[in-house]
Amino acid sequence: MSYEQFIEEVNTYSRIQAIQSQLSWDQSVMMPPNGAKARAETLAWLSGRAHETITSKKMGELISNLEESLDDLNDDQKTNVLEIRRTYDKATKLPVEFIERLAKTRSKAMGIWAKARENNDFNMYAPILTELVELAREKVSYLGTEKTPYDTLLDDYEVGLTVDYLDPLFAKLKSGLIEVLNKILLAEKQEIVDLDMNFPIPKQESFCLKVSEQMGFDFDSGRMDISAHPFSISISTGDTRITTRYDEKDPFSCLYAVMHETGHGLYEQGLPDKFALTPRGTAISLGVHESQSRLWENQIGRTEEFWKFTLPIFKEEFPDFPKEIDAAQMNLIANQVEPSFIRVEADEVTYNLHIILRYEIEKQLFNGELEVNDLPKVWNSMFKEWFGLNVENDTKGVLQDIHWSMGAFGYFPTYTLGNLYAAQLFDKMKSEFGNVNQMIEGGNWLPILDWLRKNIHEKGRLHSPSDLIEKATGSQPSSEPFLNYINEKYSKIYNF
Amino acid sequence: MSYEQFIEEVNTYSRIQAIQSQLSWDQSVMMPPNGAKARAETLAWLSGRAHETITSKKMGELISNLEESLDDLNDDQKTNVLEIRRTYDKATKLPVEFIERLAKTRSKAMGIWAKARENNDFNMYAPILTELVELAREKVSYLGTEKTPYDTLLDDYEVGLTVDYLDPLFAKLKSGLIEVLNKILLAEKQEIVDLDMNFPIPKQESFCLKVSEQMGFDFDSGRMDISAHPFSISISTGDTRITTRYDEKDPFSCLYAVMHETGHGLYEQGLPDKFALTPRGTAISLGVHESQSRLWENQIGRTEEFWKFTLPIFKEEFPDFPKEIDAAQMNLIANQVEPSFIRVEADEVTYNLHIILRYEIEKQLFNGELEVNDLPKVWNSMFKEWFGLNVENDTKGVLQDIHWSMGAFGYFPTYTLGNLYAAQLFDKMKSEFGNVNQMIEGGNWLPILDWLRKNIHEKGRLHSPSDLIEKATGSQPSSEPFLNYINEKYSKIYNF
Repeated sequence: MSYEQFIEEVNTYSRIQAIQSQLSWDQSVMMPPNGAKARAETLAWLSGRAHETITSKKMGELISNLEESLDDLNDDQKTNVLEIRRTYDKATKLPVEFIERLAKTRSKAMGIWAKARENNDFNMYAPILTELVELAREKVSYLGTEKTPYDTLLDDYEVGLTVDYLDPLFAKLKSGLIEVLNKILLAEKQEIVDLDMNFPIPKQESFCLKVSEQMGFDFDSGRMDISAHPFSISISTGDTRITTRYDEKDPFSCLYAVMHETGHGLYEQGLPDKFALTPRGTAISLGVHESQSRLWENQIGRTEEFWKFTLPIFKEEFPDFPKEIDAAQMNLIANQVEPSFIRVEADEVTYNLHIILRYEIEKQLFNGELEVNDLPKVWNSMFKEWFGLNVENDTKGVLQDIHWSMGAFGYFPTYTLGNLYAAQLFDKMKSEFGNVNQMIEGGNWLPILDWLRKNIHEKGRLHSPSDLIEKATGSQPSSEPFLNYINEKYSKIYNF
Repeated sequence: MSYEQFIEEVNTYSRIQAIQSQLSWDQSVMMPPNGAKARAETLAWLSGRAHETITSKKMGELISNLEESLDDLNDDQKTNVLEIRRTYDKATKLPVEFIERLAKTRSKAMGIWAKARENNDFNMYAPILTELVELAREKVSYLGTEKTPYDTLLDDYEVGLTVDYLDPLFAKLKSGLIEVLNKILLAEKQEIVDLDMNFPIPKQESFCLKVSEQMGFDFDSGRMDISAHPFSISISTGDTRITTRYDEKDPFSCLYAVMHETGHGLYEQGLPDKFALTPRGTAISLGVHESQSRLWENQIGRTEEFWKFTLPIFKEEFPDFPKEIDAAQMNLIANQVEPSFIRVEADEVTYNLHIILRYEIEKQLFNGELEVNDLPKVWNSMFKEWFGLNVENDTKGVLQDIHWSMGAFGYFPTYTLGNLYAAQLFDKMKSEFGNVNQMIEGGNWLPILDWLRKNIHEKGRLHSPSDLIEKATGSQPSSEPFLNYINEKYSKIYNF
């Protein structure tokens, strides 16, 4: 049996997943409401076919045979064999009965969670959350544990991720962030213009499309639509789609969603076509993906230089916008720091504290140090300590995120990894390019995309996430570049 | 092996086709251009999986077993077994190698046809058309022939259709239509207002959505988008989509496209949900489908009564529209008869002459009476005789339709069957309802839809097309109701 036969099976597996992506995109963006039931059934059916393909006897034999003479393969081929081995092992370890049970509980949990959040009723949610925690433990029992059960969950979202790796990284990050936050809270309050006007949606759309194009997004190979929650998705070679949402009173919300999703989309558009439908041509991890979105959104988008280039375009779309508001003021508006309850609305300083809080709680849950029923108490007390805020109700606290209802324990840390990687990558770019600020201000963004293409996108899954970052930057992932970035940025904005 | 196992296999087959529908809709309506190659590959892959499923040994055995005790099944179940038997037989008779060869030749032919049409160059097209005719003959050789090879092709698009059935039907229709056409051409020319104004697209959209809703289209179970050529497609229970296109100078073009596609869409929305993903819950034929679109478009939409109800809504959308134009004038504009070259732009009188011309030509092609190279000559001479027009170039003649390039020989007659069925169904409705004109004028359209639901939609594939029409109307399909309709309508409009 040959490598070609192996790739044919892998292509089939990837093709089924690509079809799932198309149907999911349609489900979120286009599908009329009454199509929901049939669509859910079709997606479940496709999951079954994907699982069948990846766990087939044939696939197992093909992998084993290739592993016997792995040295005959080149690096691209080795990547495909090793990555499919990893996926195969995980998929075969999980009983089909378990996967179906998990899927059903997730569906049920998402409904209950939505109601519990609406009614601010944690007790309504606790039983199903307990079930989900149990299911996650059961998953760990199938996948096996090297050191801690939580490691197994972390690895599921970011290969190689462990508590041993995250603990020192996050500890340093947390103390650094709290230090900056305290300086900001002590700083003199700035005067911020209140943008009390209407920003018509078609104009916002036109502005955001221009920014996305300026970033290098290829609209012959993609499109932008509206959905309840912004996301990006790759459907095939030549077809990557992003979504956003509009708020007529707030043009920043849409802009930074579009920059974020465009960052994700550029990664997908930059993956090597010739390895399409194989792991070699696929993004390596959630953390690295998030680094691409955050770099464009924050390191580039939330800067005065960005606004120096973009504000004239913005003012063309909104001729009534006050002429006196300049790039410095736009940058101030876009970078206000304030401890707040909701993660997805958080600024760059407090965002990662939200994540580390969830990380600590998940760790305790799977260490057996914390019971589901005690979650609100622990959440609220940590929140008070770190953010200085009293959580008034669980809707603003432990009930705010959908992730646990989807069975996604161990997912949150990838958000912070993305922020750390982004700062580290941008640092390296600065040292290579010299005056990056000038490039941003001049709209000369293509070299940035080219650098990311060469150092990240084109690599697909050739290296592990941490190796990829090390190869691109010369250093292992660390929280230092991010903390330096935060210090430098906010000491300027808040004069400390 | 049980009926349930059989249905499970049938569901899988139908589900794959439903996925193909979703991907095809996206391809025509949403997909960015660079996604085309991957999409074509995915659709071809899905065709392969569908073929695999319908032709499997398991499917064959399930069908045979059920056929042995067919009398134990109820009518719905029998329909499923017999219809799947028909599909299974066709699919197993065609070698996979042939299907692939046909698919490749079709792809190639569509490209060549587009260029030949653009360059008005039949000679460029003749070789590939010859290939397609040969492939159709090869298909007939696999499927078998009872009387004429063309019968086999006809049956592929409308089950049970034969030359013996169509010849007398079309002969009577043709002479009747030419008679009416001659009267119209001799009639005094009417004064028609020239609508020289702009009809903004969002206003047209809003108007067309209102008409579609008035017809009963459920937008919680469907949507309307834009595509190059209007179409309707069912994606699943609760998800039927229609498309249209806009011309700012001509509001009629979009309106009648929407009414046509809504008619198709209502058929799909009216199919019985409980038989979803089986033949029993599927539309019976192209001809019956076309009857649903044409009934709404013509019998209802192209009447003075329709405009009496709709014109006030139309004028609300277009406040600059001349106040003096009334329903009678709108009806005149919508019903001008004039021999012209292009089928898809033809009026109700000449449209079916276009079809019968193609039918005669296809018949001769597969009888061996006509060579591909002689097509333009024969086409043009028939056109001169029937329409009184000299075909100036083949782009306006034999090169105008895409159907043959798709290998679709025997398809055209279903368009005319649709027109005949529509008139016959509407006749029956009139006799049951009494004053249908009053219902149309009053916007009281729901009883019409209900009648179609009960007599056509809910039946799925329970009866053959001609049996279905006979059961609904009490008479076998005939051209008389249509000719009466045409005579009555145009004698009023043209005063003959």
